[in-house]
Amino acid sequence: MPSQPKTMKAIHYDGPFKVSVKEVDVPKIQHSDDAIIKVTTAAICGSDLHMYQGRTAAEGGTGLIFGHENMGIIEEVGPGVTLLQKGDRIVLPFNVADGRCQNCEKGFTAFCTGVNPGFAGGAYGYVSMGPYMGGQAQYLRVPFADFNALKLPPGKEHESDFALLADIFPTGWHGVELSGFQPGETIAVFGAGPVGLMAAYSAQLRGASKVFVVDTVPERLDAAKKIGCIPIDFKKSDPVKQIIEKNGGMVDRAVDAVGYQAVDASGSKEKPNIVLDQLIHVTKPTGGLGIPGLYVPSDPGAPDAQSGKGQILLSFGKLFEKGLKLGTGQCNVKAYNRQLRDLITSGKAKPSFVVSHDINIDDAPGAYEKFDKRIDGYTKVLIHPNGDW
Amino acid sequence: MPSQPKTMKAIHYDGPFKVSVKEVDVPKIQHSDDAIIKVTTAAICGSDLHMYQGRTAAEGGTGLIFGHENMGIIEEVGPGVTLLQKGDRIVLPFNVADGRCQNCEKGFTAFCTGVNPGFAGGAYGYVSMGPYMGGQAQYLRVPFADFNALKLPPGKEHESDFALLADIFPTGWHGVELSGFQPGETIAVFGAGPVGLMAAYSAQLRGASKVFVVDTVPERLDAAKKIGCIPIDFKKSDPVKQIIEKNGGMVDRAVDAVGYQAVDASGSKEKPNIVLDQLIHVTKPTGGLGIPGLYVPSDPGAPDAQSGKGQILLSFGKLFEKGLKLGTGQCNVKAYNRQLRDLITSGKAKPSFVVSHDINIDDAPGAYEKFDKRIDGYTKVLIHPNGDW
Amino acid sequence: MPSQPKTMKAIHYDGPFKVSVKEVDVPKIQHSDDAIIKVTTAAICGSDLHMYQGRTAAEGGTGLIFGHENMGIIEEVGPGVTLLQKGDRIVLPFNVADGRCQNCEKGFTAFCTGVNPGFAGGAYGYVSMGPYMGGQAQYLRVPFADFNALKLPPGKEHESDFALLADIFPTGWHGVELSGFQPGETIAVFGAGPVGLMAAYSAQLRGASKVFVVDTVPERLDAAKKIGCIPIDFKKSDPVKQIIEKNGGMVDRAVDAVGYQAVDASGSKEKPNIVLDQLIHVTKPTGGLGIPGLYVPSDPGAPDAQSGKGQILLSFGKLFEKGLKLGTGQCNVKAYNRQLRDLITSGKAKPSFVVSHDINIDDAPGAYEKFDKRIDGYTKVLIHPNGDW
Amino acid sequence: MPSQPKTMKAIHYDGPFKVSVKEVDVPKIQHSDDAIIKVTTAAICGSDLHMYQGRTAAEGGTGLIFGHENMGIIEEVGPGVTLLQKGDRIVLPFNVADGRCQNCEKGFTAFCTGVNPGFAGGAYGYVSMGPYMGGQAQYLRVPFADFNALKLPPGKEHESDFALLADIFPTGWHGVELSGFQPGETIAVFGAGPVGLMAAYSAQLRGASKVFVVDTVPERLDAAKKIGCIPIDFKKSDPVKQIIEKNGGMVDRAVDAVGYQAVDASGSKEKPNIVLDQLIHVTKPTGGLGIPGLYVPSDPGAPDAQSGKGQILLSFGKLFEKGLKLGTGQCNVKAYNRQLRDLITSGKAKPSFVVSHDINIDDAPGAYEKFDKRIDGYTKVLIHPNGDW
Repeated sequence: MPSQPKTMKAIHYDGPFKVSVKEVDVPKIQHSDDAIIKVTTAAICGSDLHMYQGRTAAEGGTGLIFGHENMGIIEEVGPGVTLLQKGDRIVLPFNVADGRCQNCEKGFTAFCTGVNPGFAGGAYGYVSMGPYMGGQAQYLRVPFADFNALKLPPGKEHESDFALLADIFPTGWHGVELSGFQPGETIAVFGAGPVGLMAAYSAQLRGASKVFVVDTVPERLDAAKKIGCIPIDFKKSDPVKQIIEKNGGMVDRAVDAVGYQAVDASGSKEKPNIVLDQLIHVTKPTGGLGIPGLYVPSDPGAPDAQSGKGQILLSFGKLFEKGLKLGTGQCNVKAYNRQLRDLITSGKAKPSFVVSHDINIDDAPGAYEKFDKRIDGYTKVLIHPNGDW
Repeated sequence: MPSQPKTMKAIHYDGPFKVSVKEVDVPKIQHSDDAIIKVTTAAICGSDLHMYQGRTAAEGGTGLIFGHENMGIIEEVGPGVTLLQKGDRIVLPFNVADGRCQNCEKGFTAFCTGVNPGFAGGAYGYVSMGPYMGGQAQYLRVPFADFNALKLPPGKEHESDFALLADIFPTGWHGVELSGFQPGETIAVFGAGPVGLMAAYSAQLRGASKVFVVDTVPERLDAAKKIGCIPIDFKKSDPVKQIIEKNGGMVDRAVDAVGYQAVDASGSKEKPNIVLDQLIHVTKPTGGLGIPGLYVPSDPGAPDAQSGKGQILLSFGKLFEKGLKLGTGQCNVKAYNRQLRDLITSGKAKPSFVVSHDINIDDAPGAYEKFDKRIDGYTKVLIHPNGDW
Repeated sequence: MPSQPKTMKAIHYDGPFKVSVKEVDVPKIQHSDDAIIKVTTAAICGSDLHMYQGRTAAEGGTGLIFGHENMGIIEEVGPGVTLLQKGDRIVLPFNVADGRCQNCEKGFTAFCTGVNPGFAGGAYGYVSMGPYMGGQAQYLRVPFADFNALKLPPGKEHESDFALLADIFPTGWHGVELSGFQPGETIAVFGAGPVGLMAAYSAQLRGASKVFVVDTVPERLDAAKKIGCIPIDFKKSDPVKQIIEKNGGMVDRAVDAVGYQAVDASGSKEKPNIVLDQLIHVTKPTGGLGIPGLYVPSDPGAPDAQSGKGQILLSFGKLFEKGLKLGTGQCNVKAYNRQLRDLITSGKAKPSFVVSHDINIDDAPGAYEKFDKRIDGYTKVLIHPNGDW
Repeated sequence: MPSQPKTMKAIHYDGPFKVSVKEVDVPKIQHSDDAIIKVTTAAICGSDLHMYQGRTAAEGGTGLIFGHENMGIIEEVGPGVTLLQKGDRIVLPFNVADGRCQNCEKGFTAFCTGVNPGFAGGAYGYVSMGPYMGGQAQYLRVPFADFNALKLPPGKEHESDFALLADIFPTGWHGVELSGFQPGETIAVFGAGPVGLMAAYSAQLRGASKVFVVDTVPERLDAAKKIGCIPIDFKKSDPVKQIIEKNGGMVDRAVDAVGYQAVDASGSKEKPNIVLDQLIHVTKPTGGLGIPGLYVPSDPGAPDAQSGKGQILLSFGKLFEKGLKLGTGQCNVKAYNRQLRDLITSGKAKPSFVVSHDINIDDAPGAYEKFDKRIDGYTKVLIHPNGDW
């Protein structure tokens, strides 16, 4: 095998609405528990667009490489690595976690206190989430590699399915879990983007009796219908009423897969509390809400001052009257990715139905643009930085 | 034994700030599963004051008898009753529940759908909670008596402790449960009224490593200290900072035992979101919030229009960032009262330390007035409508 | 509607290997919470054969009417009934439960202490399970009807599926639950009789990655394969080895759907501990065992003295070394039947694939004989005592 | 600080009933995640006696150093260590775990698959539990130090309490946990050795209403009584009957803190199934059994052939009839030690009441002898290999 190159291609953030393919140094082992992988697939995530659109603290031109949904082949391991070896095919949770802090030991790997000083949680290629280069590149350094890596069957099979184990499949599953869902129950998922579809798909896999999916984009509602869900177009009329009518009553659980950029029925005006309030109203007393959709403590582009500080006006009196429970927060990917991998391997799950495009790294800048503009059907893009998929 | 009298004394709501002892008909068996008890103890609850103060939809002079914290001796049972018999000493959950609806069968007796048409949940002696007369009276009709009654050891022992099984001891315990508390953890309880003290006491019984209790009334903070808690006076400085400093970091769990009538640091201006936001800030990432303190979907006396509709402005971005979970709602008393009774009987728990006064029914109107004005130390009053305690 | 008849047909136990259709009195309301149903379907259960074969304490000719898997239409309700009314279509858990004892209130309806004095648990039409007539008859008295009945959509749709909600579908589901199963895991079900198939089917519905089913009857193994399971013939070779080899390691969970009449590899010699020991050996360290298969404290027909006293020799050292957990006991049907009904109604579950025969009540004696002899494919028989299915 | 010495004292297994203080090499960092500690306290455990008595596969004179209950001060860390530093005071779970295998990631650190090839679980200083030297020595190598170490407050306070966090306090707590215990319940603990007392103490800390403790040694029963438990002497009469009579019925939970070397009422004849059967009989239907007491798959010194193969004759029919659940296995110390540390630090727990002797390492051989013979009150001995306690 030829020696590893010195430089590589990577997707660099140049500034608002601008990313480019840049030639940068190939990462090296820095800590004894590190590994280096040759990236076979790195997905573009909706949350990459937050940075792309300039709505975060990310600064352009400073070396920020995107990519937190990564998989690849082990190229090299540090001397502390005991379980992995060169050639292993692995997928990485978007969370970087050390596996040794209190939160990790309890399974809350999204809230690791050891990888991003002063904060609970780290990630690859994301502003404020620690000094970790992203995987939209030909190589990637993986900290605490034994702990973070999930081994996959060798070969190329299920590549697109496995790639989704880095973030959106577990995140959708997490939303269902946070809602307190039990098999046989009814559930409503708000938002049919990739995460929402994964939540709906998870509910199906886990034995929901009925899954309602709320969105307004026809392609998304179609995708929901294809996996056996009941599509609800929120522009037609109040989605809460639609669901209650079709279900013959309120649902047991509801999931917010939209987050703080929720829009009102016009589809264009941001109204940060609209989805949360719909969850409260559509869920039956004693039910539960799962909220994997992102809410942030500070949003410079918010529609009003309160939202700017992460404050949301909630129908809390109604929530209390119903005795609802709710769970929030980023997904602890390791809590679910092993079982989800096994569902893929055994043929029970095929989440790649949400993938719209497979591209080469050179096409990534164009894909960002189209994904941001929601044109040409760009919904979930997989980059293969070393080609050959 | 002499035949049961035809009329009895009962505490009647005459209108805002006015209750009187009225002679009313003794209740009769109406349904085959009913029982009639001779009330030995009925407590006055802080939530009775909501009606007393005219801040609810309750109308005076219409026959409303107060009292949802009731215990007594079985006087008569309907033909459907299979477990209870005349002479049994029982305590009743404040919730009236039918034991046969979906919510009851899952243990959510506070959300029974069979006792209060069109609503999930019923109670004795409370506006909008169904047609059930209260127990601040000499006799009380108990619907679905086998299901609702908790049997007590015969005699008079532990009367004051057992009386608290009707509401506040289980409700405090419920707050701790809703927070997701595990033994060994740290917890902060906001509010040291009777429910807050019961929450703090429950945390102690369940093996908390540290329990912080936030209030500003010296007697309450003293009571908290006496049961081993760390008192925090919110008027001295930001209670969140005080707790974090004393604890060496944020706590694992927090309980809101204050509810929608929370006040700011001045102690007099209502600020409905202040306690909830303090919970969010004082709790560590991955932690949990238990919210037994009442929030209502409609409050005519609210300080602003949004609160009037039960809408609360929450630091939801921060809550999400921390991945917090929260649980709300009235207590399903039956979920806990049996074990709590056993803790009392075995001498492990003695919740009656919160009781300030034992009175005769004729003294109840005066007690309401003093309790409402918070004078003469009136904090938890037990009425003994048939005397002899 | 014509008045209810005075007598009816019912399946009466005459003695070992002998049941007959007998004309008996139509049951009457005895307690205010009773209901009377006109039976539309009553299934024959494998456990009916225990009595049929004379291997229980049941005495023939004493009025014992069989049938604990019952559904029908409400004909009459007692004055204490609040939720049901004449004409409602319902299915009944095989357990009779009062809904008001400690065990019922915790959801352990299979261990009700109020319906069968001196014992925890009651059932219809079964020796030692209380004074309840069975439902293999035209009418049935239902005690504590509101609590026990599960309402079904009106009409005749899904009759065969709903009938299985009385016992075997929930019991199979219970086996999976007792094992501690989580979605995505692997599981092995021992025994592919109706309960075993329902356990395997439940695991599929709940998102198992792989389900192994062990039996030796070709039809049963075929049925397992048809629902997506991996069939394992225990006569071919050690089923533990077969599973470990096919799975690439031990499974996460295992279910014993065989019980105390387990046989060795010859298929004919009873060896009561063989299946339990196989569960212990096939399950990975930290895994769990679900044991819905019946074990009895006393078995007159046991192959040896120890088994006769319900004593089983277990590889307990191995079980401990692996840190396994196990759960046992009859199914609390109400814990699951509501969600399973909803899965049937929404088209997600169709458990009736195990039904082999639909018959009239007059054909029941013949069906018992064939079922006992395992001839003509008699595996799961539904009796329709009032015809017209 | 002077440089670290080259050799040190350590307790070496010479052969049956013979240990000696031997001068051996001070351990060195072998792997980047290792740390070396200077041992301040190492306890002698009852399970050390299994080896001492020659009832295991351990061979004398081969360099085996005892000690799996260890605490000390960090002397040196490997380059992969990120959380610990020289001078930190730590206590170590008896389990050696890698923190990166599937079992560790789920919290099952007692079943780590990465530290003891071919087996799930590793430990310090124990035959068959991996190549880890014990801590009854002046220095100890700690593999995967960040993951395994629990940090303690600096200084010498609570040394005896903290030392018990290595094994017996968490193991007792684990027994209670395995039983499914909930606060307010009743529980019976069989065996009042150090682990049994810790289980009883844990139940008290967690809010049991009554704790029964079964043993026959007066000092042990006295110790149980002192912490508020109800002592039961099994030599006086059937302990099951005694408990049921004193409790007014069966208990909710039972814990086996005896294990496979259980003896019958004579107190001297081994009867491996006696305690397990007592658990089954003393626990109420729907209850749970926690079994932290050791059972082994192979016991050369067993009283009969079946026990020699780890097979135990259980009243499984009765267990099934009652619908009991049971949990087994060695304690995952990390699942509990952090909270237990906090209970000690905050003054809520003081488990060191079980410690009988604090000794210098030179006195260890004598202590083994006395502990083995149960003379001079040797029940729980803490060795301080570097003196100065």
